[in-house]
Amino acid sequence: MTVITLTTDFGTADGYVGEMKGVLLSAAPEATLVDISHDIEPQDVHGARLLVERCWCRFPPGTIHVVVVDPGVGSTRGAIAVEANRRFLVGPDNGVLSSALVHPGARVVLLPVPRDASATFHGRDVFAPIAAQLAHGAELSSLGLPFTTPLVDVDPDPLTLPNGSTMGEVVLADRFGNAVTNIKTALFTSATVEVAGRILTLSRTYADADPGQPLALIGSSGRLEIAVRNGHATRVLGLARGSRVLLTPAGRG
Amino acid sequence: MTVITLTTDFGTADGYVGEMKGVLLSAAPEATLVDISHDIEPQDVHGARLLVERCWCRFPPGTIHVVVVDPGVGSTRGAIAVEANRRFLVGPDNGVLSSALVHPGARVVLLPVPRDASATFHGRDVFAPIAAQLAHGAELSSLGLPFTTPLVDVDPDPLTLPNGSTMGEVVLADRFGNAVTNIKTALFTSATVEVAGRILTLSRTYADADPGQPLALIGSSGRLEIAVRNGHATRVLGLARGSRVLLTPAGRG
Amino acid sequence: MTVITLTTDFGTADGYVGEMKGVLLSAAPEATLVDISHDIEPQDVHGARLLVERCWCRFPPGTIHVVVVDPGVGSTRGAIAVEANRRFLVGPDNGVLSSALVHPGARVVLLPVPRDASATFHGRDVFAPIAAQLAHGAELSSLGLPFTTPLVDVDPDPLTLPNGSTMGEVVLADRFGNAVTNIKTALFTSATVEVAGRILTLSRTYADADPGQPLALIGSSGRLEIAVRNGHATRVLGLARGSRVLLTPAGRG
Repeated sequence: MTVITLTTDFGTADGYVGEMKGVLLSAAPEATLVDISHDIEPQDVHGARLLVERCWCRFPPGTIHVVVVDPGVGSTRGAIAVEANRRFLVGPDNGVLSSALVHPGARVVLLPVPRDASATFHGRDVFAPIAAQLAHGAELSSLGLPFTTPLVDVDPDPLTLPNGSTMGEVVLADRFGNAVTNIKTALFTSATVEVAGRILTLSRTYADADPGQPLALIGSSGRLEIAVRNGHATRVLGLARGSRVLLTPAGRG
Repeated sequence: MTVITLTTDFGTADGYVGEMKGVLLSAAPEATLVDISHDIEPQDVHGARLLVERCWCRFPPGTIHVVVVDPGVGSTRGAIAVEANRRFLVGPDNGVLSSALVHPGARVVLLPVPRDASATFHGRDVFAPIAAQLAHGAELSSLGLPFTTPLVDVDPDPLTLPNGSTMGEVVLADRFGNAVTNIKTALFTSATVEVAGRILTLSRTYADADPGQPLALIGSSGRLEIAVRNGHATRVLGLARGSRVLLTPAGRG
Repeated sequence: MTVITLTTDFGTADGYVGEMKGVLLSAAPEATLVDISHDIEPQDVHGARLLVERCWCRFPPGTIHVVVVDPGVGSTRGAIAVEANRRFLVGPDNGVLSSALVHPGARVVLLPVPRDASATFHGRDVFAPIAAQLAHGAELSSLGLPFTTPLVDVDPDPLTLPNGSTMGEVVLADRFGNAVTNIKTALFTSATVEVAGRILTLSRTYADADPGQPLALIGSSGRLEIAVRNGHATRVLGLARGSRVLLTPAGRG
């Protein structure tokens, strides 16, 4: 059974996701539909890219990921399908699929838009039908022409300072208020982290701090995170996307 | 594999949806459950009707749609099952199933309420068991007595003016802030739209306007919509359900 | 097909649920994943426990419930798996699984935490892999050592007064604003309920009150509830968790 996952910013109350599921199940009744999220902030391409980055390789080979966060629908932005690391991804050419696009050996095709497709809902009229074709075993190359210049969106690189410290920034605030940074780091045994005027020692887990106290740790995706135990770090510390974070391994700085 | 879809205003955090899924999978383990939405506004029968209208025919023949937005549960309002266009729908007789009820050839039965059913949760005790019976191949006529007077809720008709213009109104604000109207129209090549004191030219897609600017277009369900590019039209323009919208095809008015 | 249900406080927008689903489908591709909720309030162990209580026995025997509301992740709190009433439950040892733990004949094991597990995401690295093993038919006893002292969280007992009245309290406010109490009661034919300075007669269903008026009834889980017809009782009556409710059967008090 082929797995087709769905990631959108549609919410579910308006029925757009329902329409996509209907189209998918009508065209590929044997597929297993899996909701990843429909609660991406409307038009938050950046957040969708980070979500896809976390998830796409966790699913079994052959999985088809449909990602529709698509403020440019109906404009000249392309529609693409990607095959990378034995998974498929389908979505707009606006950066949401970047983590697959930069994967070694990734192949990309530009999808044709059917003449009768709605100008405002390619999730239903372009991406779902393509996903159904992939579920039926269609070759990527049969779906469109090779495309070599997809839009790739990546985190800003953190800066390595002369003293060995790393200057990074917050790229995402999660539901728990944890501030996830662009510092992807091998596990240190010890380091200090400066953020929002505070100096924190690197912890191992949330429970290492007292309730209400801030801490820094390497999160489950291997990124440096700022958290508040039983609290909401971005709110308590006034952090937002772009806030600076300085990490200094022990014995330096 | 029979598909059973679920549309409710229950949210998921309180476990009511969980109970329904448990009942369905216990009685019909071979069925495929598909969530359409549990985020309908509490008791928003109108919004649920519009969602069902968008979705129900997109699913494969044989699909069973369970729709539970049911402020009158336990009162004298009836419980019904509908067969139309080779799909089944189960829910309260309060208008949520109207788009199927008005479909040519629709058949409707009034469902008995089991003596031991809770007075407040027919989703679990009436509709889920009926859906499971349909999944097992039960005939509609075996589930209840024919019912000829279901409550049908429809959009107000737009008004055609002597000059050929159409006066309609907003019937729904979606998650993106787009205002969906009751004007269902063949595609015009050109028209003007008056709404909230503005005159807009009919666009093809969101990207036809500058960011932050309002536009009018024919949405993916064939209805006239008012949007703001990368913005929230109902908020920006002060639109709500019932706000008037005037469409004038080019060369008239 | 084994059913694996998911109940978390992760929301879906950050991709944590996506990661868990990927891990589950990679390790147990034949399993049927069912979302119960990802909208538990962050770190609301109490709300998760009540949700599990409503749902877990509604699912077919053999179902595996994964419950991850886990503020103590990475601390010394244990990770457990429970077998009770022919269902399995997997989650942190913080009380969320209490309704299964107190079930007659429940068996519990303490799960080992793999050396390479993230300190902050046991849903992905501990609970999902264990659920996959159970889906493959693993014996509970093969997953960990017997554990006899799990943390059990229960509602406060209501108080029976000398006159036969019962003094209870609100334990949960649901999405509709209904205040669910700890008074689990056989169905009375008649009783009065005192709450927030009002005296209410026990009703059968929401529609027994006039719109906007408060009422008391026995809800679908067999608990006394306070509601407002077409309204939001906790907001209108100023109720919160812990608010007192006095029930007096007819002819007493």
